[in-house]
Amino acid sequence: MSYFTEDNSASTVNERMGPETDARLAEVMSCLVRHLHDFAKEIHLTQEEWDYAIGFLTKTGQMCSEERQEFILLSDVLGFSMLVDAINNRRPEGATENTVFGPFHVDGAPIRQMGDTISLDGKGESCLFEGRVLDIDGNPIEGATVDVWSDNADGYYDVQQPGIQPKWNNRGRFITGADGRYSFVGIKPVSYPIPDDGPVGQMLGHLGRHPYRPAHMHYLVTAPGYQKLVTHTFVGGDKYLESDAVFGVKDTLIAPYERVENGATLWRSPFDFVLVS
Amino acid sequence: MSYFTEDNSASTVNERMGPETDARLAEVMSCLVRHLHDFAKEIHLTQEEWDYAIGFLTKTGQMCSEERQEFILLSDVLGFSMLVDAINNRRPEGATENTVFGPFHVDGAPIRQMGDTISLDGKGESCLFEGRVLDIDGNPIEGATVDVWSDNADGYYDVQQPGIQPKWNNRGRFITGADGRYSFVGIKPVSYPIPDDGPVGQMLGHLGRHPYRPAHMHYLVTAPGYQKLVTHTFVGGDKYLESDAVFGVKDTLIAPYERVENGATLWRSPFDFVLVS
Repeated sequence: MSYFTEDNSASTVNERMGPETDARLAEVMSCLVRHLHDFAKEIHLTQEEWDYAIGFLTKTGQMCSEERQEFILLSDVLGFSMLVDAINNRRPEGATENTVFGPFHVDGAPIRQMGDTISLDGKGESCLFEGRVLDIDGNPIEGATVDVWSDNADGYYDVQQPGIQPKWNNRGRFITGADGRYSFVGIKPVSYPIPDDGPVGQMLGHLGRHPYRPAHMHYLVTAPGYQKLVTHTFVGGDKYLESDAVFGVKDTLIAPYERVENGATLWRSPFDFVLVS
Repeated sequence: MSYFTEDNSASTVNERMGPETDARLAEVMSCLVRHLHDFAKEIHLTQEEWDYAIGFLTKTGQMCSEERQEFILLSDVLGFSMLVDAINNRRPEGATENTVFGPFHVDGAPIRQMGDTISLDGKGESCLFEGRVLDIDGNPIEGATVDVWSDNADGYYDVQQPGIQPKWNNRGRFITGADGRYSFVGIKPVSYPIPDDGPVGQMLGHLGRHPYRPAHMHYLVTAPGYQKLVTHTFVGGDKYLESDAVFGVKDTLIAPYERVENGATLWRSPFDFVLVS
């Protein structure tokens, strides 16, 4: 037995765990303690910086409420959410890639008919979203649920503006038939800032970073026997594509937005989703 | 410009910082992001574990109040507070070592005369604390302030029991004369648990660890021209010496507690403090 020193710090902490500790918890905590200690040693963290960090974490926790999750924002802007998503969703070439889920999904959106409109507030430029849900060999998947959600033309999700936007504005679920096709009319999404009036927004300011996300449509695509796909399609040409505040953009997720010359719909965005089993 | 991938994750996040970012902030954040990402990759952190961590950090923040700092407790039990203290207080052989400051110091304790009693509640086994404040060459330091504080015989600091303990119970400041000597009568401190009714206490439970600290007397010793000394002396033989919940024990800080056979005082604990300039 030796007492804690700068040299033995992480192992001294980790050896303190009891023999009955859950094996996975022990593994995760040991790794966390090792990296935290390595960080402090490598950077020679000062007492004042430690004080600041304690204050920052405290404010971040106290900013959280039923409507606001500041620690998820922190994870998002540090690329940690995207990294965890990537680690857990490695897929073969050709399968649609995942991206961050985000905080704005709501379970139980209305199941709508193919071609229905999800935009209920009459704002924005209408856009036809259509394509197929396929397996890795290109066969259509029947009975897939395509759950979609986006912000409105003012850059807010309905849950951010209860009483202002109609309930379920820009949300809906669509079930594919034998042809695997889906289609719905929404709006061409717009870029928007993540909530930046808290400690995380202040941190972004100190780091010379803006809080914007490039415009995107959210998709949660599920089908029995296939891996859940959580993704977005991004509006090509958006000025924030290369600087998404939460690092969600992937090359393969940038969708075409084609101007439609006739009819009430102004845009068309075709995109096929490829699931893996 | 390339988009975020599992491989380039940390560098993609760090390259996003603006050119005007404060150089030290940029250095600290880059190092933090690198270690956080390495941690997630090394352990293959799952989405469920990420969810749990977000919930844990949120609860930890929301446990914090004017009287309770759960993030400091978290830092303490992970050995992070001790590590930051060690990194910032490397001292030559022979100088008294630092240990954690803890959350219970109060500025402005009464300045008392040498030999005065600091224990005001009449509880516990009385103990004479005495010794000298010296420089590294063994010369007495005149005008040093020895600020002391401990728990009472029930294991609580006065600030934990306002209205129950007398104000300034087991606290005081003593100014050395030309001989560098200090002395005061307190009680032989007792071991106590850190507050363990929050998420950090729950975590200790999951890790098979107890929340106890071995009995100790706190010292903050300052003198013009010398480095501030923040330390404890520990009661030798305490059953938690080898398992201090916050890893504060160092060999050199274990003090003798000698039984005194006559007089009103039951114990004597001599200890010299050696400051470096």
